[in-house]
Amino acid sequence: MYNFIYEIPTKVYFGENQLQSNLGSEVKKYGNRVLLVYGGGTIKKIDLYQKIIEELQSFNIETYEFSEIEPNPRHTSINEAAKICREKDIEVILGVGGGSVIDSCKIISAGKYYDGDIWDFVIKKAEIKKALPIITVLTLAATGSEMNTTSVISNMETSEKKGIKSPLTLPKVSFLDPTITYSVSKYQTACGSCDILAHILETYFSRNKGLYMLDKVMEGEMKNVIKYSKIAYNEPENYDARANLMWASSWAINGFTRMDRQPNIWICHLLEHQLSAFYDITHGLGLAILIPRYLKYALNENNVDTYYNFGVNVWNIDSKLPKMEVAIKSIEYLENLFYKDLELTDNLSKLNINDQHFKEMADRICENGIVEGFIDIDKEDVVKIFKKCL
Amino acid sequence: MYNFIYEIPTKVYFGENQLQSNLGSEVKKYGNRVLLVYGGGTIKKIDLYQKIIEELQSFNIETYEFSEIEPNPRHTSINEAAKICREKDIEVILGVGGGSVIDSCKIISAGKYYDGDIWDFVIKKAEIKKALPIITVLTLAATGSEMNTTSVISNMETSEKKGIKSPLTLPKVSFLDPTITYSVSKYQTACGSCDILAHILETYFSRNKGLYMLDKVMEGEMKNVIKYSKIAYNEPENYDARANLMWASSWAINGFTRMDRQPNIWICHLLEHQLSAFYDITHGLGLAILIPRYLKYALNENNVDTYYNFGVNVWNIDSKLPKMEVAIKSIEYLENLFYKDLELTDNLSKLNINDQHFKEMADRICENGIVEGFIDIDKEDVVKIFKKCL
Repeated sequence: MYNFIYEIPTKVYFGENQLQSNLGSEVKKYGNRVLLVYGGGTIKKIDLYQKIIEELQSFNIETYEFSEIEPNPRHTSINEAAKICREKDIEVILGVGGGSVIDSCKIISAGKYYDGDIWDFVIKKAEIKKALPIITVLTLAATGSEMNTTSVISNMETSEKKGIKSPLTLPKVSFLDPTITYSVSKYQTACGSCDILAHILETYFSRNKGLYMLDKVMEGEMKNVIKYSKIAYNEPENYDARANLMWASSWAINGFTRMDRQPNIWICHLLEHQLSAFYDITHGLGLAILIPRYLKYALNENNVDTYYNFGVNVWNIDSKLPKMEVAIKSIEYLENLFYKDLELTDNLSKLNINDQHFKEMADRICENGIVEGFIDIDKEDVVKIFKKCL
Repeated sequence: MYNFIYEIPTKVYFGENQLQSNLGSEVKKYGNRVLLVYGGGTIKKIDLYQKIIEELQSFNIETYEFSEIEPNPRHTSINEAAKICREKDIEVILGVGGGSVIDSCKIISAGKYYDGDIWDFVIKKAEIKKALPIITVLTLAATGSEMNTTSVISNMETSEKKGIKSPLTLPKVSFLDPTITYSVSKYQTACGSCDILAHILETYFSRNKGLYMLDKVMEGEMKNVIKYSKIAYNEPENYDARANLMWASSWAINGFTRMDRQPNIWICHLLEHQLSAFYDITHGLGLAILIPRYLKYALNENNVDTYYNFGVNVWNIDSKLPKMEVAIKSIEYLENLFYKDLELTDNLSKLNINDQHFKEMADRICENGIVEGFIDIDKEDVVKIFKKCL
């Protein structure tokens, strides 16, 4: 019956030069002491750091900084940042970066009100009951964290990478300026695009039938990502490409297309989180390797319709061909007309990953038995899919 | 550059049986004295009235009622309802109905804080500075009022029908239960579907280039409306059809697909509002008569691409045909495969409307000179388009 509750109150300033005067006034609405959180030094290279500091100064906002967020963000860094929030009585978190930074901000914001290890939130030893307001400036179109409630955090001590959600950590305001992403490298552009497409795909390839309208919306979103990922990859300063990918990143995973088909377990994401946890590889790259293999593995007579619709409506494959033929072609098109163009490493062996940990990874994915996603998978299935990626 | 600010915080409970316990608790969040606003007696016929009263009672909410809202809501009725708000110190407006009721609620909510005639808001003699919180229960998929800031109000004394927007009047919470629309008549189902499609069309056929992603989303939304309007028309209790139309009604006009292409003047809506103002005809019917004529009138070599995309992507017309041929076909398909199936009166003469007031209507539409919409139109154009509708 697709019952759901829709609620996405994040305010988004989209476009060029929206930061100026809006960022300061938005921060000011929520407080006067801000923790500016970012990752490496990229934001300094592109003058974004300077713009933000000037903006905060012009609104007399007391600013503290934390710049030690890793690409797969670690719980230890988040603990450090949360400590600053408690010590300096921070009132607002301002995250400037991609998914890693924004994911971190969510848990930092909850950490303000928790003295223990924030990993407790991830393993459900503690519950997020209160969180600081979060404002974000997005620098990479990929994870959609700027408009959703999810964080993915890594614990390198235990080789764990886990997702956690709380409506309390949804960003209040996000600034999406496509020109900020002009400097994103070809590699990160490719990985980001793979991540966006994966979010749409894993919802579209769902065992739970959802609203036809949202299937149509997702088909449109996928066409958009397929078209503009190549253009952004080849022309980093193409505004249309960066803008379309940026807004797509938010809408691929803010819940709009997903909330009518719960439960909706994303199997490839589960598999990829293990790859990243064990080998610290980029999430989008892991997904690019996994998704075509997974789709081939999952295809059967019972679910061929979803592939057929994907083939006909996204790839314009002739609708008169037999369904199974369209299904197989749709995966070939995805490989040849999307992933290949992004020139990412196309198997795990080339990344010096072998089958050594596959069983352990499968044990973790299936720790509660069979996982019921688009298809049911058990430990053996997981190992088989990983092996196909070698 | 498509800069915009996205902000649609309306919370939506979608699906069957979501009213129970959620309606009372949501109302209670905003206040204890509610004005229940509805139109004719339909909500009593389908037992919805009883359910709502019981729900409000079980939360001890003090309830007042106003049930005099007309299909094209009059400013005089809104004045009456606003007076009740002031006299009874109402804290929340609960609108149960379609667009007319919800549009009215928005102005009633502002009228609580204004002693004068609410028509002053419409003609900009007064400004909406404060408004009561609004909660809605939708009974007809059409206008999208449940998730946007717009009201359309009629003044029968002056034969005027005008739109007004205020972010303060955006509904806080809307309940969308597709089964409530099972009892909507064939005629109202048809008119509602025409309204939804028109909202998407008038954004899609825009002179301002917007994000490709949103064009793709609109194409998907249009396919959805085209598919399910016929099904809902023929099978009123088809849940899929009612659900897909209902969610489409909100997303056709909540601003998501429109905010990147401002200014975005909807010419057919301007024309139709004059028809309704002079002849009190159903908005969706007026649009159904106007839209194909308008699209034919507007087509030229400079804008043929939009029609071509509409033809190829929405109607699956062969992309290899000449652009102008696809464009003309796309309008024919719209007439023959959408409007005809809904069996609405297909010209104004059959509604006993002649050209008597066309000039006056054109004067009003073009009171400030040329209207710059998808095409530029002047008074002569308006009269010509109306005449094609006879």
